[in-house]
Amino acid sequence: MEQRLSLITLGVNDLTRAKDFYENVVGWTPEPGPPEIAFFDLGGTVFSLYPLSDMGKELDVTIDNRTEPAAQRTAMAHNVRSKEDVDAIFADLNKKGATILKEPTEVFWGGYSGYFADPDGHLWEVAYNPFWTIGDDGRVSMKTETETD
Amino acid sequence: MEQRLSLITLGVNDLTRAKDFYENVVGWTPEPGPPEIAFFDLGGTVFSLYPLSDMGKELDVTIDNRTEPAAQRTAMAHNVRSKEDVDAIFADLNKKGATILKEPTEVFWGGYSGYFADPDGHLWEVAYNPFWTIGDDGRVSMKTETETD
Repeated sequence: MEQRLSLITLGVNDLTRAKDFYENVVGWTPEPGPPEIAFFDLGGTVFSLYPLSDMGKELDVTIDNRTEPAAQRTAMAHNVRSKEDVDAIFADLNKKGATILKEPTEVFWGGYSGYFADPDGHLWEVAYNPFWTIGDDGRVSMKTETETD
Repeated sequence: MEQRLSLITLGVNDLTRAKDFYENVVGWTPEPGPPEIAFFDLGGTVFSLYPLSDMGKELDVTIDNRTEPAAQRTAMAHNVRSKEDVDAIFADLNKKGATILKEPTEVFWGGYSGYFADPDGHLWEVAYNPFWTIGDDGRVSMKTETETD
């Protein structure tokens, strides 16, 4: 894995309340996007707000606000440039004995990703997202190659 | 607050084990630094591993691994260029009714910082760190101005 962070996602109980806070109290501008998630571009790292209940669904686990493993309220993502890159990273992680939570698979939002956990249970997704672009400097842009050109 | 993420810190139960995982399984190279924390430069965003018990100390709260508020196992930081910038941000956050966990103050590691929480309890530190440099593009570098020159 290259030494890069593409995305950090905070699990929230009320997406409208959370988005309002980052928009009107912190003062950031959200990206246009679907209503079920909020994205903010932090200069090459994407910051997102996502309902806790949906974070659970993506991993096929139930996240209960009182009893969920604490680390699962935040997830980090490392985006790569192809599905093959995702597979290669998981092959390596498996070989090295990492805890794989979900082997890479096609996901509902149109990408390809898997999840692993660090020794404390912090979540990492390794993803290929065909809708985003990764620059030569490793920073992500929420534009497709076509939009960028 | 400018739209930037400077640092993300994961609380860990065993720093040696966590650092070994990111170094030898994920394959990243840590920065030289003190033994009580681990830093990795993710291209302008610093990723750090820090004992959960010490994360609690910095906020004057006890973080118990079973009962701590879940969100408190991860903290994000927004670094700025002066103490005055930290104060200005907290004045604004106060005015807008944000939950301030710790008003800005001199901290043991030599910087000046405060903490606020978002509506779900996710932690944000706003910090002036005299040992790090913020580039014109907003990315942080773990070098002082002197070392950079």
